[in-house]
Amino acid sequence: MKLLDLYAKMKGDLNQIEKELERSVADDHMLLSESSLHLLKAGGKRIRPIIVLLAGKFGEYKLDTLSKVAVPLELIHMASLVHDDVIDDADTRRGQLTVKSKWDNRIAMYTGDYIHGKALSIVSQLPNPQIHQILANALVQMCIGEMEQIRDFFNTDQSIRHYLRRIRRKTALLIAISCKLGAIAAGVDRKTANLLYRYGYNVGMAFQIRDDLLDLYGTEKQIGKPPGSDMRQGNITLPVILALQDENSRGNLLHELALIREQSGRSDTRKAIRIVRESAGGDLAERLASRYIEKALHALKDLPDVAAKKSLADIARFLGKRNY
Amino acid sequence: MKLLDLYAKMKGDLNQIEKELERSVADDHMLLSESSLHLLKAGGKRIRPIIVLLAGKFGEYKLDTLSKVAVPLELIHMASLVHDDVIDDADTRRGQLTVKSKWDNRIAMYTGDYIHGKALSIVSQLPNPQIHQILANALVQMCIGEMEQIRDFFNTDQSIRHYLRRIRRKTALLIAISCKLGAIAAGVDRKTANLLYRYGYNVGMAFQIRDDLLDLYGTEKQIGKPPGSDMRQGNITLPVILALQDENSRGNLLHELALIREQSGRSDTRKAIRIVRESAGGDLAERLASRYIEKALHALKDLPDVAAKKSLADIARFLGKRNY
Repeated sequence: MKLLDLYAKMKGDLNQIEKELERSVADDHMLLSESSLHLLKAGGKRIRPIIVLLAGKFGEYKLDTLSKVAVPLELIHMASLVHDDVIDDADTRRGQLTVKSKWDNRIAMYTGDYIHGKALSIVSQLPNPQIHQILANALVQMCIGEMEQIRDFFNTDQSIRHYLRRIRRKTALLIAISCKLGAIAAGVDRKTANLLYRYGYNVGMAFQIRDDLLDLYGTEKQIGKPPGSDMRQGNITLPVILALQDENSRGNLLHELALIREQSGRSDTRKAIRIVRESAGGDLAERLASRYIEKALHALKDLPDVAAKKSLADIARFLGKRNY
Repeated sequence: MKLLDLYAKMKGDLNQIEKELERSVADDHMLLSESSLHLLKAGGKRIRPIIVLLAGKFGEYKLDTLSKVAVPLELIHMASLVHDDVIDDADTRRGQLTVKSKWDNRIAMYTGDYIHGKALSIVSQLPNPQIHQILANALVQMCIGEMEQIRDFFNTDQSIRHYLRRIRRKTALLIAISCKLGAIAAGVDRKTANLLYRYGYNVGMAFQIRDDLLDLYGTEKQIGKPPGSDMRQGNITLPVILALQDENSRGNLLHELALIREQSGRSDTRKAIRIVRESAGGDLAERLASRYIEKALHALKDLPDVAAKKSLADIARFLGKRNY
């Protein structure tokens, strides 16, 4: 698989990022370190650090500088996961107990705040104010995205546009700025930075749609938590919105969603999942994800021909593939 | 009262800070704005912004620049209050419903994250990296302080030193950096900035000790929430630690604290409060607070003689007074 080759090729630099991730949370306070490390060790694809490094290849590639962007972005992602798990009342993530489940909600809330603070403290070592501005604005947008998700729980009347706006804030923006900040930290010109941003944005959109598909089409083993988790908490994702627009499935699906809502989280989602699977929702969502991948690849076209360009294309294609 | 004179004298500038506080959270997303504004409108003494402005008087006083420090610091304080109310399961603050009580814990968590993001997005407009570094490090320390508080719940064996280290992180640090960042934003020399930091640190320590005293000696009307809240959630504060060191009260107090712990939050703290009040704890804590005020006043001594110096002394003396 091409993505594994990419990891292998970047192994040295990724190892250093990994070490700095660990070092960043491994001091000060035992319980906070322990809960943060627990999350760190649970792994993850480190998509954001990889993208930062690859974006940096379009300019002056200095690992020490780039890691001051890559590490904070991964930490911010991790902090948002810890807070999400509190909100979602999730017991497992990536097949491991969540912080809120292994400890409790209070520990999880402060662990998130702590990881977040560590992220800021690392990025604040970079003198470029533009980096701080872009990052801070993205953080605000991410919160708004999370709040929209809560507000839209069990809202069966939401439009596709509504969903897309939400995942743009919730997911795509952080991946987009991973590209842009990596580029800025490497001193690339504005046009290149903006193309990389556009690449990241479209990859991020595809990534979230695919993640939402996986929650409905994957197995527990694949996704590290029981399928249908989104539905169970009321998060109406693209395949569900599309299935609701399908006359053949709308009635039954509305009925099932109402039942799930009534039983607030303890309900069986198997029937609802089956209805979505039998609708056109999955295919349509899949097609939309592919379109975002195409847009991401298109943004790469005008970039200078460095080896990283091919790697970014590989990442986009990998994320565009159905792997369920 | 001298402090009211101070507010009157700074009215114009404080009004602008107030407007910018409102503007900072009054857009983007309705629910987030509403929950943030709810908190903002509940008031507060705005100690941090006032201190930022006064520290700025020792250098080149530019309100526009200083407000980019003052507003974020007040927002960060507010964000920490919202998260604390989740942790403390508090229903009222300053006599008003808390965000977590008016809405719910999830809204409160993201409201805190959102206000925090807004704070960063304002301060990121300042080009001085030192400001970002000092702020980010303080944020990490604040989280650690909050975590220590959780870890130490119902720990009846903690030392005074232990308590002081916790409140330094939890409270004093943010007030100390309010001084220092105001000074740095106004371009004062390092020696003056450090003296102002020392002033703020000592004022902050006195402030928290006094706050902890108020929770045991104040009336519900004075403190905007039922007295004994700290004890009820297991937060063992200085007067309690001191009462536990008093042979005459130790046994009875340990017994009461064990009862409170067993009944997890629903218990009557009146007897425990009475035991603390009858012990030497209150007087000793009061004396320690006064000593911090003296240290704060001492730090002011070597500062240049500008009018703000007297105002800072007034603030310190005001905070040092028993007002219960």
